[in-house]
Amino acid sequence: MTTTFRLALESDLPAIMAMLADDEIVKTRGDYPTEITPAVRAAFGEIESDQSSELWVGERGGEVIATLQLTIIPGLSRGGMKRALVEAVRVRADLRGRGIGAALMAHVTERARQAGCGMVQLTSDKRRLDAHRFYEKLGYAASHVGMKLKL
Amino acid sequence: MTTTFRLALESDLPAIMAMLADDEIVKTRGDYPTEITPAVRAAFGEIESDQSSELWVGERGGEVIATLQLTIIPGLSRGGMKRALVEAVRVRADLRGRGIGAALMAHVTERARQAGCGMVQLTSDKRRLDAHRFYEKLGYAASHVGMKLKL
Repeated sequence: MTTTFRLALESDLPAIMAMLADDEIVKTRGDYPTEITPAVRAAFGEIESDQSSELWVGERGGEVIATLQLTIIPGLSRGGMKRALVEAVRVRADLRGRGIGAALMAHVTERARQAGCGMVQLTSDKRRLDAHRFYEKLGYAASHVGMKLKL
Repeated sequence: MTTTFRLALESDLPAIMAMLADDEIVKTRGDYPTEITPAVRAAFGEIESDQSSELWVGERGGEVIATLQLTIIPGLSRGGMKRALVEAVRVRADLRGRGIGAALMAHVTERARQAGCGMVQLTSDKRRLDAHRFYEKLGYAASHVGMKLKL
């Protein structure tokens, strides 16, 4: 079965939220609601109206089975180079290991290239060793430390 | 002398570009033009017109002596939490170690909080040990690996 990639619709939210919650590290946080709260619905609206952010899904046999968020960011560094930020990458648990994640990443990398980006970047929790191998296989260099401050 | 923080103007570009270039790691890339090329001017225009990105400067005695870029990103994770991304942080070399960087970070952190962000994040080259200590002192956790793919 083929996976096709398209921008998310509001009706995809239940499938996307279920994939975001179904994650070992998210579960350690203790706060993994799959509920479509007004805040989640508002966030979807903000992504839709944000000219820089795109929420992508992979669809297979009529089901949403993968997702990620792409944000394109202008900047002065490296001679005025745009960069793309990838967040919240997920493939449905029962469909991992079939190249769907790699195909989704390839799709949005091409999207970033078309938008004029010279770099794609992401951060991955230090405990996600499989994810680091996955991204390294796609050509990513683990050159940086990803630092977070909770407000 | 006090440092005041404000959004950058196009006339600040020479000072900002000089600070971006005056950096040990940027210099190892071999490509550190301080020139205000059409691409740099276009990138400044994109930052200005991007509703999510803000280029900040610190000014002291009429001179621009610090800079960073803040980008506010909506998202579905953590119940629809917005996050802020910090990029291209610089303080002029002769004025480091006086708390100007910390004051600039505090300023934009407050800005991110007012914009409804639940997190500020950044990546820092693994070789920047002083920078990691600086951010850890500000409360940042080095919880992630920062991965980059050049296009």
